[in-house]
Amino acid sequence: MTVTVEERFAIHDLYAEYAAAIDEFRLHDWLELFDEECSYRIVPRENFAAGLPLALVLCESKDMVRDRVVALLEANEFAIHTDRHLVSGIRFRGRTGDVVRVDADFAVFQSNSEGEGSVFAFGQYIDEVVLAGGRARFRSRVAVMDNSCVPHAISTPI
Amino acid sequence: MTVTVEERFAIHDLYAEYAAAIDEFRLHDWLELFDEECSYRIVPRENFAAGLPLALVLCESKDMVRDRVVALLEANEFAIHTDRHLVSGIRFRGRTGDVVRVDADFAVFQSNSEGEGSVFAFGQYIDEVVLAGGRARFRSRVAVMDNSCVPHAISTPI
Amino acid sequence: MTVTVEERFAIHDLYAEYAAAIDEFRLHDWLELFDEECSYRIVPRENFAAGLPLALVLCESKDMVRDRVVALLEANEFAIHTDRHLVSGIRFRGRTGDVVRVDADFAVFQSNSEGEGSVFAFGQYIDEVVLAGGRARFRSRVAVMDNSCVPHAISTPI
Repeated sequence: MTVTVEERFAIHDLYAEYAAAIDEFRLHDWLELFDEECSYRIVPRENFAAGLPLALVLCESKDMVRDRVVALLEANEFAIHTDRHLVSGIRFRGRTGDVVRVDADFAVFQSNSEGEGSVFAFGQYIDEVVLAGGRARFRSRVAVMDNSCVPHAISTPI
Repeated sequence: MTVTVEERFAIHDLYAEYAAAIDEFRLHDWLELFDEECSYRIVPRENFAAGLPLALVLCESKDMVRDRVVALLEANEFAIHTDRHLVSGIRFRGRTGDVVRVDADFAVFQSNSEGEGSVFAFGQYIDEVVLAGGRARFRSRVAVMDNSCVPHAISTPI
Repeated sequence: MTVTVEERFAIHDLYAEYAAAIDEFRLHDWLELFDEECSYRIVPRENFAAGLPLALVLCESKDMVRDRVVALLEANEFAIHTDRHLVSGIRFRGRTGDVVRVDADFAVFQSNSEGEGSVFAFGQYIDEVVLAGGRARFRSRVAVMDNSCVPHAISTPI
């Protein structure tokens, strides 16, 4: 399994832009990081490990991701926190044509309206990335949350 | 906007060395990561978002950064914590000649003299990096803190 | 001191795989990231800074690392947490032939059986990496823990 230098950078840039788009609340930009054919899920680690289908968030098409963006932008009037994603350990697991299996690790910190911060979530991304025309997009992203017992509801994407 | 492979690595190395210089308390080395013409600021996220000028730390020249190093080294007799920076999501935002606009995300963990650790700060770097002679230096660095309500005073740089 | 593009990627991949092997509890894979001639230690920051030899974990050969894997796999029946490593700031400190001195920063988050998460440990890796045949392996790894006062015993590797 091989990725070229350019492909490796395109994938790293995708991961960096994904985090920034959420943390800067540019959700339309976030949407455009997904391929036309895509899925997005947030799954508790124990469910993922057991092969159980239950997801905290489940979008099985780009239209479902788009609906989520619309809902989040409407809910934003009541936004009471901001997110900060840290991502490391990007690793290449396999390749089928232009689709690369990629894993990575994430931690999300949140700050509330009082400026108080804490660790919100951490876990693993399990992804399929499509490479086309020098760009990388998510065919599928599964965010597996280690700490499924989160202190409050998940609203913004992970 | 394009950075070459070598420039990308030079920028990554700059970010890694910046974190290490602070965490290893090599503050003279930290100073030399700034260009002769430079600025350094730590700004709360809400102020930054609102365009307000208030900064927690403000150095508008390299001499002001140098003064800060001297003050920190004198205060070090009373140092009661150590820092650990994690940085990810380095992304290239634009370029004008040899100056590249770069963003990244950071989290700083601190340990006190009892060996107890906690998350101290997290947020976003908003930078201008000068590339010259195969090296990268900060023309300007703004550390935007998401958690402006920090548990204790900021002393070492972020 | 120079590493080639390919060597840089091989080292980055080693660091990503090291974190994943522990977090996915693939300890035999973790073992194989060490060179035949190797050592592995976890040391509190204050001991490391003072040059004191006391280590929280000390493996002075690959057989000792292997013994640790066996012990951990046996103890796994009682596993009550999962780990998540974030690693950044990989930096190249020197080179002697095929052996590269590398530093990096880490944070380890843990989740317990209730799905509650927290920061477990953070600090610095101080490593010697052997490059051979396009692969990178640890000749030695020292995990220096900033927060030596950990909330519970260290079991899985850092």
